[in-house]
Amino acid sequence: MLLMAIDGGKSKTYCIIFNERGDVLASSLGGPSGLLVYADVAEENIFSVMRRALLKANVDIKDLDLIVISLADLDTDKDWEMARRIVSSLNIPKNVRVILEHDAVAAYYAVTFGEPGVAVIAGTGSIAFGINKHGERARVGGWGWLFNDEGSAFWIAKEALSLASKAVDGRGKQTKLVSAIMEYFNIKKFIDIIDVIHKEFITEHERIAKLAKVVDMVANEGDEVATEILVRAGIELAKMAQAVAKKLKMVDDEIIVGGIGGVFSSDIVRRTFMKKAKELFRRAHIKEPLIGYQPLVGPVVLALKECGFDNVESVVKRISKELAELSSRS
Amino acid sequence: MLLMAIDGGKSKTYCIIFNERGDVLASSLGGPSGLLVYADVAEENIFSVMRRALLKANVDIKDLDLIVISLADLDTDKDWEMARRIVSSLNIPKNVRVILEHDAVAAYYAVTFGEPGVAVIAGTGSIAFGINKHGERARVGGWGWLFNDEGSAFWIAKEALSLASKAVDGRGKQTKLVSAIMEYFNIKKFIDIIDVIHKEFITEHERIAKLAKVVDMVANEGDEVATEILVRAGIELAKMAQAVAKKLKMVDDEIIVGGIGGVFSSDIVRRTFMKKAKELFRRAHIKEPLIGYQPLVGPVVLALKECGFDNVESVVKRISKELAELSSRS
Repeated sequence: MLLMAIDGGKSKTYCIIFNERGDVLASSLGGPSGLLVYADVAEENIFSVMRRALLKANVDIKDLDLIVISLADLDTDKDWEMARRIVSSLNIPKNVRVILEHDAVAAYYAVTFGEPGVAVIAGTGSIAFGINKHGERARVGGWGWLFNDEGSAFWIAKEALSLASKAVDGRGKQTKLVSAIMEYFNIKKFIDIIDVIHKEFITEHERIAKLAKVVDMVANEGDEVATEILVRAGIELAKMAQAVAKKLKMVDDEIIVGGIGGVFSSDIVRRTFMKKAKELFRRAHIKEPLIGYQPLVGPVVLALKECGFDNVESVVKRISKELAELSSRS
Repeated sequence: MLLMAIDGGKSKTYCIIFNERGDVLASSLGGPSGLLVYADVAEENIFSVMRRALLKANVDIKDLDLIVISLADLDTDKDWEMARRIVSSLNIPKNVRVILEHDAVAAYYAVTFGEPGVAVIAGTGSIAFGINKHGERARVGGWGWLFNDEGSAFWIAKEALSLASKAVDGRGKQTKLVSAIMEYFNIKKFIDIIDVIHKEFITEHERIAKLAKVVDMVANEGDEVATEILVRAGIELAKMAQAVAKKLKMVDDEIIVGGIGGVFSSDIVRRTFMKKAKELFRRAHIKEPLIGYQPLVGPVVLALKECGFDNVESVVKRISKELAELSSRS
């Protein structure tokens, strides 16, 4: 059987072709296709990762058995309409089934394999999603990048900009973030950040969100302000998981809780999240966060479950290992 | 003498023609010309308010003695270049002098008439500016709408969106802001706010910022969450004034401190600001905030000072009275 999994995020789109034994035939990576980008951008990026993966694997699209696409920001009725329009414009042969899913739901499957639990995604944005033993679903967060996005890369960037500018204002702690931000945005005076952010970068959220990596670097050099931002991110992400579990009345149950997404590649965020989650959930199994290509695990699990395989976990382990190697190379 | 004052803000542009006795010959109002809008938008809006005021007053532009233009977001070298290009494209006859100034500096003159003190502007954005007895200048805030903009209308809107969405998430206090926001944006499900904000409204900051008025209405109906946002806004604005005074080493001096801008039309913000400012400044004269057409007082004072008049304060009082009447009618 030939399966394709695609994860369309706010910053990147990942794609792999694999089989039911866990062999990865090909992978590819492209620009964003989360539904806050324009429809034609999402379409182009999905089309492009599919084409490159098919070429690399030397597979004809009509030989695929199933394509699972998980997308960020697939929230409203309008979003679903837009996603279906995008899929229908990809010219996928009718014999190939396509499943569309919200990336938070896919993330939940990546973390729990369908057992009761909660997944927290922290990439450019942040969202938590869970399902309890009765099959009831709940989500928290995922409101975009302007508000209520604590713990996301974009939020980390906004906090860094806010605290650095307060230091420049003379009403905040001094921090190396000031010079690091000037270097990142290639500006000579800090005040130029106003133009850079509001005029040049505001349509490129990805580039602002990437500032989160700079915050992590500065924190690792011992900067208190930067460290504090990342600690707060880790705590907020654990609290989001708790809020979902509360809604589903399973905070004190033996559930699975885990994180997924690029923000967890920060040691400080990951360690804080694990510690706080262990405090908030007394009986849950707190899994190590998944990063790099790992967001693909969600649509991979969905695809294997859809095809009715039992040994999903062991197959996914093989694929995860290959994905981890891909991540370390990218 | 015939003078023209123009205040170009993030949401509106005000214009009046007046004389040295304080007679207002004409006034006009148009769209934004603060420098975070596109240059041609700012140019068109300034040109349009000038033309209408001249027509109403039946005055030929060449008969003006001086034009003072205060602009929001006139921060960086690039902004000044842009502002000068805009002015030169307005085809103002060479015999008419034009003075350009940052709106925070103009606001300072509106509040203090040039005496040592601090003005806090809270419109769509927020900024504080002051000058001490040695003529030293300092500013705090004014970083745009993405970060470090506490107390501004846009910040109030973001806080309202954040706390309403947290209530919907089931992890925040219940608040009437949820239904008020749905009504304001004309949506049937709260989750649709994601599309509305990030796709339709994000280029129209003014419309998001206007949500601050809804927050004030909801607070006046007794909603705790909305009230708390406005109280925090008032406190933050007073703290910005304090930060400026600290930088200028005049916190404990007999200085003048006052607010200016639309956010102060909220009773809760105004009262909180006055109370907090009285706490933070033991010997300062805390003036009642200026609202409505009052931002024009800044360029008016600058114009009168520039022409060398002594009785600036009494002339401005006459003009302010007329402006207050205009505000109550608009």
